[in-house]
Amino acid sequence: MDAQTYLKDYIKKSTPILKKFFSYKEKEVAGISSICAEMMRVYVDFMGGKNIRGALTKLGYECFGGKDEKAILEASLMVEITHSFLLMHDDIMDQDCLRRGEPTIHVQYGKLHKERYQKGEPKHYGICMAIDLGDAGFALSHLVLAEAAFAPLIKERVLKRFNKQILTTAFGQAIDVSYEHSQNVAEEDIMRVHRYKTANYTITGPLQYGALFAGAEETEIKKIENYGLPVGIAFQIRDDELGILSEEEKLGKPIGSDIRENKNTLLHLKALEWASPEDKKFLESAYGNRGLTSDQVKRVQEITFKTGALAYSQKIARDLVEKGKSFVPKITSDSQLQDTLYRMADFMIERDS
Amino acid sequence: MDAQTYLKDYIKKSTPILKKFFSYKEKEVAGISSICAEMMRVYVDFMGGKNIRGALTKLGYECFGGKDEKAILEASLMVEITHSFLLMHDDIMDQDCLRRGEPTIHVQYGKLHKERYQKGEPKHYGICMAIDLGDAGFALSHLVLAEAAFAPLIKERVLKRFNKQILTTAFGQAIDVSYEHSQNVAEEDIMRVHRYKTANYTITGPLQYGALFAGAEETEIKKIENYGLPVGIAFQIRDDELGILSEEEKLGKPIGSDIRENKNTLLHLKALEWASPEDKKFLESAYGNRGLTSDQVKRVQEITFKTGALAYSQKIARDLVEKGKSFVPKITSDSQLQDTLYRMADFMIERDS
Repeated sequence: MDAQTYLKDYIKKSTPILKKFFSYKEKEVAGISSICAEMMRVYVDFMGGKNIRGALTKLGYECFGGKDEKAILEASLMVEITHSFLLMHDDIMDQDCLRRGEPTIHVQYGKLHKERYQKGEPKHYGICMAIDLGDAGFALSHLVLAEAAFAPLIKERVLKRFNKQILTTAFGQAIDVSYEHSQNVAEEDIMRVHRYKTANYTITGPLQYGALFAGAEETEIKKIENYGLPVGIAFQIRDDELGILSEEEKLGKPIGSDIRENKNTLLHLKALEWASPEDKKFLESAYGNRGLTSDQVKRVQEITFKTGALAYSQKIARDLVEKGKSFVPKITSDSQLQDTLYRMADFMIERDS
Repeated sequence: MDAQTYLKDYIKKSTPILKKFFSYKEKEVAGISSICAEMMRVYVDFMGGKNIRGALTKLGYECFGGKDEKAILEASLMVEITHSFLLMHDDIMDQDCLRRGEPTIHVQYGKLHKERYQKGEPKHYGICMAIDLGDAGFALSHLVLAEAAFAPLIKERVLKRFNKQILTTAFGQAIDVSYEHSQNVAEEDIMRVHRYKTANYTITGPLQYGALFAGAEETEIKKIENYGLPVGIAFQIRDDELGILSEEEKLGKPIGSDIRENKNTLLHLKALEWASPEDKKFLESAYGNRGLTSDQVKRVQEITFKTGALAYSQKIARDLVEKGKSFVPKITSDSQLQDTLYRMADFMIERDS
């Protein structure tokens, strides 16, 4: 199946379950305080996006012979709820104000503070609430797992794998944040972040949880990594390309925010390496400059094109996707599911948002 | 058994297991980056304190007939690791610089930034790393659970109860943070925060996880709440008393930080209510004033004594403890364990740090 069709189908089927889950939680906690009920509404409204991770959980389940669609749709919410929790914290760390065209959680609560409270700083209140709502989200995702319609032994395996991956993601994030504050970051460092922060978390992990839900054992799911790691790194490379090439409406956040945040990307590294001395000087002043104008962002884009950094990044991503695809027959022998895995891999670098 | 003896025994027995767990994790992640290995060292060094929650997990296990001490010591680390994660995030929210006499995690990483990095703001880097290390901690605590030497069905029950409690704690924290920014917080609001943020989390939850590990069913553990809720609220009331009465060396953080943060406590509320007009005016200017001098803190203390706010707070806490103790015979019929539960309840309000 075409990747976008698969994703849309997943969203169509899982959204009502998600809404029901949060609406139930909202009612359950309304008795504590209206603040809690509102948190549940804010959380579910924040969710959205492509749902790659939830959909891959379902796909992994199907590849390993799982047949109970309702059960896997319910269980896969764990992954999407966790993704939102990590984005809430990520947005604080990146000091991002927009996510999918809407204010980020810390910005939302900062605004609420101004309307509602008499004391304290709106900005700090926003950060507190976004940290706390993220923490609540991680607990919620574990409640989804605890309540999922699978055998306790299966849930135990998912619990272990899931938290190993989230731990690795947290490590990847710490390295990423640290590199943003460093000089002399090398290509292998960038690839390390892509691997630990993104690839395991976005592709390998979700497919593996799905496989475990279908009854696969810990030892059986190792081979998913051969597909997930290269495809997941390619996904991140494409993400970084879109971060400087896409349009604001499509991306849902300002173009150039990666540059302003001094995010370490392959594009960034290669443009610096291959730029003329004059352009290099400009790039060095642009990366990490939070006051960068849109004209200056355009100049970074131009340098990224003309140095060949973009072409290099695209080539690496395409090679990784092809590498990942070569392992598809080891994951499933079902030709339809193989087809979906191939198209999913292509989608990671062909998407325009 | 005397509460302090029980706690010391727990610390003595659990610390080597904790150190081993983190030392193993440190080795496991050293290959990703030295940043990750360091995170594990920073985490374990941050742990400490009275270990009330870990010890109560063990006590709950014993009260419900559990006999495998090694298994419960290992599993109880889940609770203490989670506690540290919440403290890391709490310290960011409260903008606290000291915890148990040592720099808080965001302050530690802010300092490291100055030594190590060339770009970005130390303060923001510290906050990023403390958010991220906290998230890693929550994943670690779930790994402890996943790997615990109990049956999958038991772990499923603990997973559910544990995350329900953490979710409730996050709600309690959100309410608490919001009240700090509000005016006109009532006694019932303060009690609501004590209940949701502290009592369930500190007393009821840990005893319940222990009971579940011992094989109790979800329905059986309800009665623990009758003990945990009043004793837990009393614990928080005592905590707030110590926050303004204790000495800095004992408390491990500056006296008066609750006042500077405009923390809503019973003492705060009652002192305001019962103060003379002149004192009331002073209190209003003192609460939430981050630049409060130690002389001004002393004046707040004096007003708290002379209005009778402290006596009132102590009376409420004592009554709650007695109420909780009356339910002990419903939890266990073992007279030695009953004795420990009684003494543990008394300890919550008799402790001086």
